[in-house]
Amino acid sequence: MINLISTGLKWDAEGLRILDQTQLPLKEIWLPVHTGDDMVSYIKDLKVRGAPLIGVAAALTLGWLSQKGLSLKELKQEALKLRDSRPTAVNLMAAIDRVMKHDDPSEILRTSIEIFNEDVSLCERIGSAGAHLIKDGDGVLTHCNAGALATVGIGTAIGVITAAWKSGKRFHVYVDETRPLLQGARLTAWEMERLGIPFTLICDNMAATLMAQNKIQMIVVGADRIACNGDFANKIGTYSLAVLASFHKIPFYTAAPITTVDWDCKDGSQIPIEERKPSEVHAGQVPPHYPVYNPAFDVTPANLVSGYILDRGLLSDMTQITAR
Amino acid sequence: MINLISTGLKWDAEGLRILDQTQLPLKEIWLPVHTGDDMVSYIKDLKVRGAPLIGVAAALTLGWLSQKGLSLKELKQEALKLRDSRPTAVNLMAAIDRVMKHDDPSEILRTSIEIFNEDVSLCERIGSAGAHLIKDGDGVLTHCNAGALATVGIGTAIGVITAAWKSGKRFHVYVDETRPLLQGARLTAWEMERLGIPFTLICDNMAATLMAQNKIQMIVVGADRIACNGDFANKIGTYSLAVLASFHKIPFYTAAPITTVDWDCKDGSQIPIEERKPSEVHAGQVPPHYPVYNPAFDVTPANLVSGYILDRGLLSDMTQITAR
Repeated sequence: MINLISTGLKWDAEGLRILDQTQLPLKEIWLPVHTGDDMVSYIKDLKVRGAPLIGVAAALTLGWLSQKGLSLKELKQEALKLRDSRPTAVNLMAAIDRVMKHDDPSEILRTSIEIFNEDVSLCERIGSAGAHLIKDGDGVLTHCNAGALATVGIGTAIGVITAAWKSGKRFHVYVDETRPLLQGARLTAWEMERLGIPFTLICDNMAATLMAQNKIQMIVVGADRIACNGDFANKIGTYSLAVLASFHKIPFYTAAPITTVDWDCKDGSQIPIEERKPSEVHAGQVPPHYPVYNPAFDVTPANLVSGYILDRGLLSDMTQITAR
Repeated sequence: MINLISTGLKWDAEGLRILDQTQLPLKEIWLPVHTGDDMVSYIKDLKVRGAPLIGVAAALTLGWLSQKGLSLKELKQEALKLRDSRPTAVNLMAAIDRVMKHDDPSEILRTSIEIFNEDVSLCERIGSAGAHLIKDGDGVLTHCNAGALATVGIGTAIGVITAAWKSGKRFHVYVDETRPLLQGARLTAWEMERLGIPFTLICDNMAATLMAQNKIQMIVVGADRIACNGDFANKIGTYSLAVLASFHKIPFYTAAPITTVDWDCKDGSQIPIEERKPSEVHAGQVPPHYPVYNPAFDVTPANLVSGYILDRGLLSDMTQITAR
């Protein structure tokens, strides 16, 4: 009997289900996964999001379909569709490739469950690697959501925050709302409340003012893809924070599992950046013909990063990684 | 017969009316001003906004009430209420003090109309002073709305953009949406469309990425109060842009009439910053108990400003102003 439970994904007697993150925090609605196409549309519509989670969710979808009896040929077709669902996060491609290197459906199932369990422990190790970076009385700023909802464990950036809190540190979290889709306001704030960690929600354009007021001592964000030279892609707005942090001399960290590193990617210029539809920015407030630029991610250059909080430890420099 | 017409304010045979800026761009609704309290609530609710416009609107309200026959004592009471309606923009206090230094209601009326006409010509002169700063092919970034809707003329920052466009320059405007109240998305985009100037709407957290892509050659914003040392308050998010501009070596200007200078204010630390209600940030998307920090303005230090585009010309430094 399979029984995998995380904050945003479940696989139990009722089947594989995901928590619809577009409805949070006002509604908690679980959606069933019946087909590969279901998961593809959940990922495209951001009902499932977060680089590690979409990797795990795609892998489990293939595990689930293999348990349902799909042939290897059919599974390969589903894998191709899932692989194309979002372009920027590399965890998705890595997880799919890892399950699909097997020819045996039972191995595909076993590997997908392995990936789930690994993500839980990767998050724990990221939390342990970074918890000491937060001090009592700090103001900690985070962007978007790199938490339990973005993984199947305690999260990456929020994994660090959670580990520090559980170790007894007492501090305050400032949550960037993260336009256009408000993953900070809707998801990170929801997680902070569940964790009992005091927080304040701000608009993205207020972060600089808090920095000037000396209210921020540490910034930690997630990553959707890390290039070999340490440049990394993350939710739009991350690069802005990195520049502001540099100006205000505030340490700026990214936290991610090693599966976020793209070993084939030399630097940030090679990371494809997904552009999403204008209506996300219009949000019903302006006429739908107003021209919009809506990149979902940006690239932060390595020279603005104080450190990489990875499951294998805190690195000041990605060149310190020599082995995969 | 009084006949004052601007984009956002009218005083004609139908009386004194304002265009409800909270309803733009989806609805164009004109609201009548019957009492001083009407204008106070329009200003507080941002139905009338923009530092120069609220100054003119408050002055005209006193002119209108004096025409209606209110006594000097009553007018003074109304003036006190109007003066308290918003704390950050200094034009409001300056305009009210200027009309109320008269003891004769007919002088109050005459001065209020004088202030309206002056604002029109201040905007023209600001436009002329700054138009040469925009080059053919430039990408010009602006924040919030410092346009025809924020003044009774062609605007301040947008006055510069308008003057450059009318002089035959061809360029592209990037419009910061300006959370939480989206004055960029709703008002500046509306003005750009009416002016026929090509524009692209972005979320505030995307500006840095455009700068890194070399898409922005010049930034111009308005000002709500300029201190004697050149520090200035403007819509929240302005300071963030100034830091990002400095990092990317992009010229950063503020455009304002001389009435925006607070001669009693030594530096930015003395400018009161209005905090507004959390519901502006919640915007119905998150539970109303989520804690929020919502400053309406921030202060940009003089050392991040490339120049001040004032009605009396382009100054690199506010210390160049020796006379009021």
